[in-house]
Amino acid sequence: MNKFHRITISGGGSWATALTKIFAESGVHVCWHLRSDAHVEQIREKGRNPNYLSYLELPMENIHPVSDFEEAARAADHILFAIPSAYLEASLGKTDPELLQDKKVIVSIKGVVTSDNLLPTDYLSQRFQLEDSSLAVIGGPCHAEEIAMERKTYVTVASRNNELAETVAGSITSHYIRTVINNDPLGVEYSAILKNVIGIACGIAHGLNYGDNFQAVIVSNALREIKHFLEIMHPLERDLSQSAYFGDLLVTAYSEFSRNRTFGHMIGRGYTVQLAHMQMNMVAEGYFAVKGIYDMSRQIGLEMPLVSAVYRILYNHISPYIEFKLLENKLI
Amino acid sequence: MNKFHRITISGGGSWATALTKIFAESGVHVCWHLRSDAHVEQIREKGRNPNYLSYLELPMENIHPVSDFEEAARAADHILFAIPSAYLEASLGKTDPELLQDKKVIVSIKGVVTSDNLLPTDYLSQRFQLEDSSLAVIGGPCHAEEIAMERKTYVTVASRNNELAETVAGSITSHYIRTVINNDPLGVEYSAILKNVIGIACGIAHGLNYGDNFQAVIVSNALREIKHFLEIMHPLERDLSQSAYFGDLLVTAYSEFSRNRTFGHMIGRGYTVQLAHMQMNMVAEGYFAVKGIYDMSRQIGLEMPLVSAVYRILYNHISPYIEFKLLENKLI
Repeated sequence: MNKFHRITISGGGSWATALTKIFAESGVHVCWHLRSDAHVEQIREKGRNPNYLSYLELPMENIHPVSDFEEAARAADHILFAIPSAYLEASLGKTDPELLQDKKVIVSIKGVVTSDNLLPTDYLSQRFQLEDSSLAVIGGPCHAEEIAMERKTYVTVASRNNELAETVAGSITSHYIRTVINNDPLGVEYSAILKNVIGIACGIAHGLNYGDNFQAVIVSNALREIKHFLEIMHPLERDLSQSAYFGDLLVTAYSEFSRNRTFGHMIGRGYTVQLAHMQMNMVAEGYFAVKGIYDMSRQIGLEMPLVSAVYRILYNHISPYIEFKLLENKLI
Repeated sequence: MNKFHRITISGGGSWATALTKIFAESGVHVCWHLRSDAHVEQIREKGRNPNYLSYLELPMENIHPVSDFEEAARAADHILFAIPSAYLEASLGKTDPELLQDKKVIVSIKGVVTSDNLLPTDYLSQRFQLEDSSLAVIGGPCHAEEIAMERKTYVTVASRNNELAETVAGSITSHYIRTVINNDPLGVEYSAILKNVIGIACGIAHGLNYGDNFQAVIVSNALREIKHFLEIMHPLERDLSQSAYFGDLLVTAYSEFSRNRTFGHMIGRGYTVQLAHMQMNMVAEGYFAVKGIYDMSRQIGLEMPLVSAVYRILYNHISPYIEFKLLENKLI
C-alpha cells in the first residue's frame, strides 16, 4: 500500500490529538499546527496535550508542534484539518490561497461553516480552489477517547480520488485501527454533521426522562431522515450500514463520551443554551449544525421531524417537553 | 378505531406481564393463561406477578388468571402468545387443533421453534391451520421493564390483515404507548429474532473489552445483515428504519435490560454457555435463534459474518477472542 511520510495536522482539540497520535505512531512525521505559542511550548515540553486527552503520552519523536500556519502548511504535501467548524473561517482568515496549491487536503470536521452553511470541504475547495481529486474526508465512528485507550476503531477515508484515499489509509498502521475506504466524501461529511444533531436529540430525550425504548425510536427514525436527506443533497448508490454513516451516528447517540449528547441532556433538563455551553466550557458542534441542516431541509422541501424539533428547541426556545410531545406522534 | 373487549394472553414472563398490563388498563378483559396453578393463585392473591416485574400492581379488575389452556382459549376470540419460543411446542402439546379455529392469533415471541427452525407464526399456522388473515405479530422496541415504568414505548402491530392490525392497535389505549401498524408480520418476526443474536454479539464484544467505537461498527453492520437476510427470506418493500425493525435491534444492542446482551457479556468474559445460563437462571432466546438463523443463512447461501461468529462461539466452542479478531476484518 502507498503511504506518505509527512503530514500537517491543524487543530488542538481531542480529535486532532488522536489523529496526531495515529499518524505519528504509524511512522509518519507530523507537523502539528496549534493556534497558540504557549500550547506548542507545553506540548514540546511535556510530550502531552495538556488541554485534551492529557493522560496520553505522544510519540514526540515524530511530532513537531508549531503555531505558524504558513510554516506548518509548507512542511508537508498532505494537510489535515481537524478543528471545530466554527473556527475554520477565522483560522484561515489571511492565508494566501496559493499556500495550498498542489496540496492534498484531508478534512475531519464535523460541522458546517456557519456563515453560509457550507460543508467544510466545500468551503475549503472554494477558498483555495481545490479539485475534488485533491480532497479526502476522514470519518468515524471514533471517539478520540477510545483511540487514546487504543480500543479497536474503524476509520473511513473517503475521496473521489481513490489513490488519495488509499494513500491516507496506507499511512495509518496502528494495530487498533482498521481503515475502510469509500468514494463518497460528501455523504460521509453530511452524516458526521447530522449525527451531532441526532446526538442532541438523544440527549434531550434522556434529560426529559424518556427511556431506552424511545431512544431506539429516535435513532431508527434518524436513519430515515439521514437517508432521505442524502438522497436529495447528494444522490449516490451508498450503503448506509457502513460504519462511517450509521456507526458514526450510533457512537454519538449512545456514548457517554459524546459532547452533543451531554449538551442535549442539559437542554432537556431545563438549562438554557447559554448556560449549557458555559457549563460544558465549549460549544457543541451540533448547535450550529442543526441550524445549517434545518435551513437546507427547508430549501429542499424535506420534512425532518427530528432536526426540526431540535432546531425549534434551540433557536425558537420552544419547551423541550412540548416539542417532544409533538415529536412522539411524528415518529414510526 | 375498532377494538375488542376480551383477549386471552398466554405466558407468565415479564413480556406477557407487560402485555397483560397494557390491555387490561386499556379496558380489555384479559384472560391470562399461566402454566402453574400456584402461579395463578399467587397473582390472584397479590395482584402482582411474583416472578417478573413483581413491583408492578396489576389492574386486576380486568384480569382473570387461569392455568387451563382450554378454558383460556375459549374465553376470547383473540389469543396472544407471549411465551419463550423454546416452550411453545411443549406448551401446546396436546391441544386440540379445533380449539383455535375461527380465532385470531397474535404472536409476540422473539425466537425460533427449535425442532424445525420455524418462525412462531409459521409453527402456529401449520399446527392450527390458520390463514395469514387470522395472524398478527406484536413487535418492539419495547423492554417490558420500561412499560412497567410507563415510559414512552412504540408497539408495532403487523398483519397481512389490516383490519386485524387496526383492531389490535385500537385496543391499546395506554397514554405511554404509541401503536404503529404495518403489513409485514414475517419481517417484524425475523427482525425480532435476529436482534437477539446481535444482542449476544454486542455483549460478547463488551465482555472482550471492545469499546463504543467497535460496538457501533457491529450494530451498523448488523443492519446490513438483517437487510440482506430479509430481502432473500421475505422480499417486500419495507422501511427498515421503522422502529419495529431497527429500533428493536437498538434496544437489545444497547440496553442494560437486555438479557441476550448480558448472556453475551458472560460468554465474552470466558463463561461457558452452561455456566452463563445457570448464572442467569434462564436461557437467552438468542442462543437458540443463532442456530436457526445460521442454518437458514447456509441454506440461502448468504454470508452473515456476525451471525456466523456468534454461532461458532456458542456451538463450535471457538474462543470469543479469536473469533472476534477474525470478525474485525469482515466488517466495514
